[in-house]
Amino acid sequence: MTSEPPQVRPHLAQLPGYAPVVPLAERAAAAGLAPEDCLKLDANENPYGIHPSVRDALSAALADPHFGSIYPDPNQTELRAALSRYTGLDPDMIVAGAGADELLDLTLRALLRPGDSILTCPPSFGMYPFLADVNELKLIEVPRGNGFALDADALLSVVDRAAAECVVVLTSPNNPTGDLVPRDLLRDILARGATVMLDEAYIEFAGFDTSAQDLLSEFSRLIIMRTFSKWAGIAGLRLGYELAHPDLVADLVKIKQPYNINQAAEIAGIAAVDHADEIAEQIKAIRGTREQLYATLISIEGLAPLPSSANYILVEVDPAISTGRELHDRLAAVGVFTRTYSDPLLTNHLRISTPRADQLSTLIERISLVL
Amino acid sequence: MTSEPPQVRPHLAQLPGYAPVVPLAERAAAAGLAPEDCLKLDANENPYGIHPSVRDALSAALADPHFGSIYPDPNQTELRAALSRYTGLDPDMIVAGAGADELLDLTLRALLRPGDSILTCPPSFGMYPFLADVNELKLIEVPRGNGFALDADALLSVVDRAAAECVVVLTSPNNPTGDLVPRDLLRDILARGATVMLDEAYIEFAGFDTSAQDLLSEFSRLIIMRTFSKWAGIAGLRLGYELAHPDLVADLVKIKQPYNINQAAEIAGIAAVDHADEIAEQIKAIRGTREQLYATLISIEGLAPLPSSANYILVEVDPAISTGRELHDRLAAVGVFTRTYSDPLLTNHLRISTPRADQLSTLIERISLVL
Repeated sequence: MTSEPPQVRPHLAQLPGYAPVVPLAERAAAAGLAPEDCLKLDANENPYGIHPSVRDALSAALADPHFGSIYPDPNQTELRAALSRYTGLDPDMIVAGAGADELLDLTLRALLRPGDSILTCPPSFGMYPFLADVNELKLIEVPRGNGFALDADALLSVVDRAAAECVVVLTSPNNPTGDLVPRDLLRDILARGATVMLDEAYIEFAGFDTSAQDLLSEFSRLIIMRTFSKWAGIAGLRLGYELAHPDLVADLVKIKQPYNINQAAEIAGIAAVDHADEIAEQIKAIRGTREQLYATLISIEGLAPLPSSANYILVEVDPAISTGRELHDRLAAVGVFTRTYSDPLLTNHLRISTPRADQLSTLIERISLVL
Repeated sequence: MTSEPPQVRPHLAQLPGYAPVVPLAERAAAAGLAPEDCLKLDANENPYGIHPSVRDALSAALADPHFGSIYPDPNQTELRAALSRYTGLDPDMIVAGAGADELLDLTLRALLRPGDSILTCPPSFGMYPFLADVNELKLIEVPRGNGFALDADALLSVVDRAAAECVVVLTSPNNPTGDLVPRDLLRDILARGATVMLDEAYIEFAGFDTSAQDLLSEFSRLIIMRTFSKWAGIAGLRLGYELAHPDLVADLVKIKQPYNINQAAEIAGIAAVDHADEIAEQIKAIRGTREQLYATLISIEGLAPLPSSANYILVEVDPAISTGRELHDRLAAVGVFTRTYSDPLLTNHLRISTPRADQLSTLIERISLVL
């Protein structure tokens, strides 16, 4: 070679990177098990898989000779109309992305310059510090307090000081702790003029009555992120959306990748909206199983599950018994794949996604087996 | 509302935005025609559509109960292995993206700071100035000369002056002019130590023997972009890839959106590679039709088509007859959708994608009709 390869910018060269989920096939192979004998409970996917109605819509679309070969609609007209039916908001307050991940990134890029900040309340979703790193943003962390509850006083005090130069990122229900953002606290933050990016990726499992969506008409600096990856069972197709003031949405539509929504995601997303009532049955089942799982976990000595409004449960492991990482590894050896964390706040924790109802007894047996 | 909505950064607020392709249904409706009676020749898609083998692979995948619901592999292991078979390069020199568009953006973000520059040779692909705008990059333009040939002297002189702070973006074949980057010129630019992002989106229509891929082993600052949108007929599923030095690829894998390749694109891409020999028949047919179209166009008084190595032809319209925009509009009224440009360099031009062989006579009839 005649010269050094191109160097990425200094702030990128040293990044730890995002810790993504390891594919099922790799994890199963590591455990020496067939994938179908394993419980994949590490990524909060819908354990019932894609809904038959959504699958049927994709099958029907595949029969069209033009399927796949034509560029998607950059204005997302049909998809935004479907999202409008789903949310009850005008299409001009909605923009879709390749997962909420793309929209988190796009919105931070649009609003913040390198050197600006995002405020987060760890422990929370690992994508936020990752995107801060990528976009050369500072991270203002207001750690959660006892039982991982949001520290309202600390949060408001930082908002008072820094709201002008930062975006406040909140998550409701929070990943991985499972709790909702208290509505009064959210109002207090918004009333201070802060720009709040509220991630409601798991809101369907809490119920739409817990959403802050109705506050969009009152607070123009509220931005809500949603996804089809969890409730609608199409994490693999990549579809999320953002609810925001029409002016911001118009700007985001202009600067996003023109063809950001692939056709399979578009078709599946519209079908999921059209069959949301049927998918609601899955959501109901997941909530029921989550409560059964919680009741079982809390009865096991050494495990302290947190109440959850989402489709997963964060479990605190008594250090006298094990660490989060150790228990994760022992479970992985028997084909139960959970999520563990390098975050020091979560050394004694692991997160378990809710399985299908028919998988619950296997899960509990295997947990008993390794404890 | 209690406050103004969040403001995007000043350089974004004034952006003209990218001029994307209008969906077929909208264009057909505007013409008062059924979509199936129209010729969609505005986006350089594969007119034969998705290959039956690729469609079959997607149908088979849909039968898997886990289809769609599981997050894609962030390391793209199987996909990169397929791309390795297709290109003959090691997987560690390959990263896949949601279209080449995502990778163009990601790579510019990784290498350049706001205020840095990209060098382009207009007229070329509109995505480059769009991404420069979005990423607050300066645009150094070295316009093409007579017949839209690259101006080698001007290009080398700017490279000598500015190579250290810019990325040189070249396109081979160039969109919309259809010409290849001369190999000697590319070598001269690379030998000066410049970082060159060479967009080979249409290289399959020129033949792999015209690719600069073999120069990757000699010049570590060469970066090549490719796509499945054109040759493989899956523009709607979003799949592109990048060939570069392993160090750069490793960094890009680390900072990209972890789940950037949707599962439908992954399956279709692997199937397209596995059936590349069959798809090559479509490519051969497209090249044949392109030459027939060229021969016809050059025989029409007032039209001057440019020879093309891609799957489209740029046509210069004699101002005595019409403008590019006017002819575009007249063709649209009879259901022939071509691409026109706001770029002053292309006032007298329009671009026509190559149709299927069986559509050629209709295309020529309709052109005659409006001239």
